[in-house]
Formats: sequence, C-alpha cells, structure tokens
Amino acid sequence: MSPIEIALEEARAAAARGEVPVGAVVCAPDGRVLARAGNRVEELHDPTAHAEILALRAAAALRQSPRLPDCSLFVTLEPCPMCAQAASFFRVRRVVFGAYDPKGGGVDHGARVFAASSCHHVPEVIGGVREGECGAVLRAFFSGLRGQGGAAPLDPPLG
Amino acid sequence: MSPIEIALEEARAAAARGEVPVGAVVCAPDGRVLARAGNRVEELHDPTAHAEILALRAAAALRQSPRLPDCSLFVTLEPCPMCAQAASFFRVRRVVFGAYDPKGGGVDHGARVFAASSCHHVPEVIGGVREGECGAVLRAFFSGLRGQGGAAPLDPPLG
Repeated sequence: MSPIEIALEEARAAAARGEVPVGAVVCAPDGRVLARAGNRVEELHDPTAHAEILALRAAAALRQSPRLPDCSLFVTLEPCPMCAQAASFFRVRRVVFGAYDPKGGGVDHGARVFAASSCHHVPEVIGGVREGECGAVLRAFFSGLRGQGGAAPLDPPLG
Repeated sequence: MSPIEIALEEARAAAARGEVPVGAVVCAPDGRVLARAGNRVEELHDPTAHAEILALRAAAALRQSPRLPDCSLFVTLEPCPMCAQAASFFRVRRVVFGAYDPKGGGVDHGARVFAASSCHHVPEVIGGVREGECGAVLRAFFSGLRGQGGAAPLDPPLG
C-alpha cells in the first residue's frame, strides 16, 4: 500500500470515530512508515490534534529527535497553517497532500505559510495526489452530518 | 502578579532548562490562570511544544473542551504561524504578547495568519506588552549561547 493509501485508511478510521476524516503518514526515505495517524480533535478535546501533528510528533518521538530532515509527510488534505508551520519546524523534506483546501488550507491557500520570507525551512510540496479519493472521504463525511440535521457548519474548516 | 509577569517567569524557567525562553499563560475572564507553560521543545524532542501550544492544550484539558472562547492567551513573544493558528482553533478571545518577532512571528509578521481570509476566528490582538523585559530575556539567552562558542544560530527562529 502506498503512503497516501495508508493516509486514506487513517482518514476513514477517523470518520468512523466521528472525526473530520484526515489522515497522515510520515515515511523514511526508503518508504518505511515511521508513523501514521488520523485526526483526534474531538476525542482529545484538542484542536492541535490534527493528523499531521500527531504523525510528526510520533515519528520524532520514535527517532528521539525534533528534526526529520530525510522524511516525507503524506496527508489526505492540504495542511492548515498550523500544520504547515509544524512540518517546517520538523524540517521534513517533502509534504505530499491529496485534496486542496481553499477554505482552511495554509500551503496553496490562505496564509501560504511556506511562501513567507520568515519560513526558515521550506519543504518540497506536491499537492493533488489521489485528490479525488481524498476529497470524496471528506465530502461523504460532511454530507452524512448534514443528513443528520445540520450538525456540520456549511463551510467547515477542514484542515 | 499580572499574567504577562507569570509568562515572564515561565520564560525564565525555560531558559534555565536550556530552552528558548518563551512563556505563556491562559487566563479566564476573571483573570484566573487556567494554565501556564514554558517552551519544552528540546526536552520533549517536539518542535510543536511551544509555550502557547502547551498552555492552550492544558487549559482545554482542564475545561474538557477544545474551545476557550472566553479566555485570553498571554505570551512573551509574538506567536509563530503555528501558534497563531492554534490560538484561532482554540477560539481564544484575545492574544496578548510581549516582544515582536520580525524573523519568526506569524501575527504582525511573515504569514500574518489572522489576516488571511481563511482564518475563521480572529482574536483581538495586543502586542508590545512589557516588550522590553520580554525581549531582554530572549536577548540574554542568545547572547549567553553565543558566548559559549556559537551554539546558537545568528538569526534564531524565536517563535
């Protein structure tokens, strides 16, 4: 299974827990999965518990190092500004994401964190990988919520 | 002691642990301190362990809620983009900070997270509170490191 497929598995597992379905994987250069995580914001009462942050922290804990300069972060959705800046702080080599997020993204939209001159480490970015499937998981989740009586906002922040 | 003075205490305690000296406090509307924290990036091998994130997560855990809409975040340094976005996600009412950070800040500098149209919750921001003392703690820390043989980069990211 490719890293983005594993991230999709994590996204689907997050949906099953009632979380906004975003999944993330941190890989070593040889493709080995160091950490995988899904969104756990609701479960942990913690809006910083995005899939990317959880996976990056787990990989760094495994390595006993705050820096992951040879690693790639795979995530099903364009990272928000918080997660984009975190990926920069962890010094990841590459960020690969699935669906674009015009409403909450912080890489190709909004604050465009990596484009700021004060961003000291800018990873390589590849967006739109398995975009259709990654976006479909999110759309299915939010349309299900709306079907239950409008529990979701009309314009949910996805990141 | 005022919240920013408590944050300064946390910053000095962080310096004593060998951490970049930034401290943060989350206060309820009546001024009661819900959480206080200093930077623990080195200790935890975790670049997301900024003072702001640790204090916000602790306050949310105390409240058993991911949202702190009546709370203020006090921090000795302008938050970086990661922490600014986190403050928005926690829905804090107000962000009060000490020193400005032209090199790593994400509120009045760089990515200017709160100014992005995709920032769904924009707190009130008050910068420059006890600016001199807050900056002095950081300058003393970095000049001490340089005195020890250049362990610090010349332009350290502070946030």
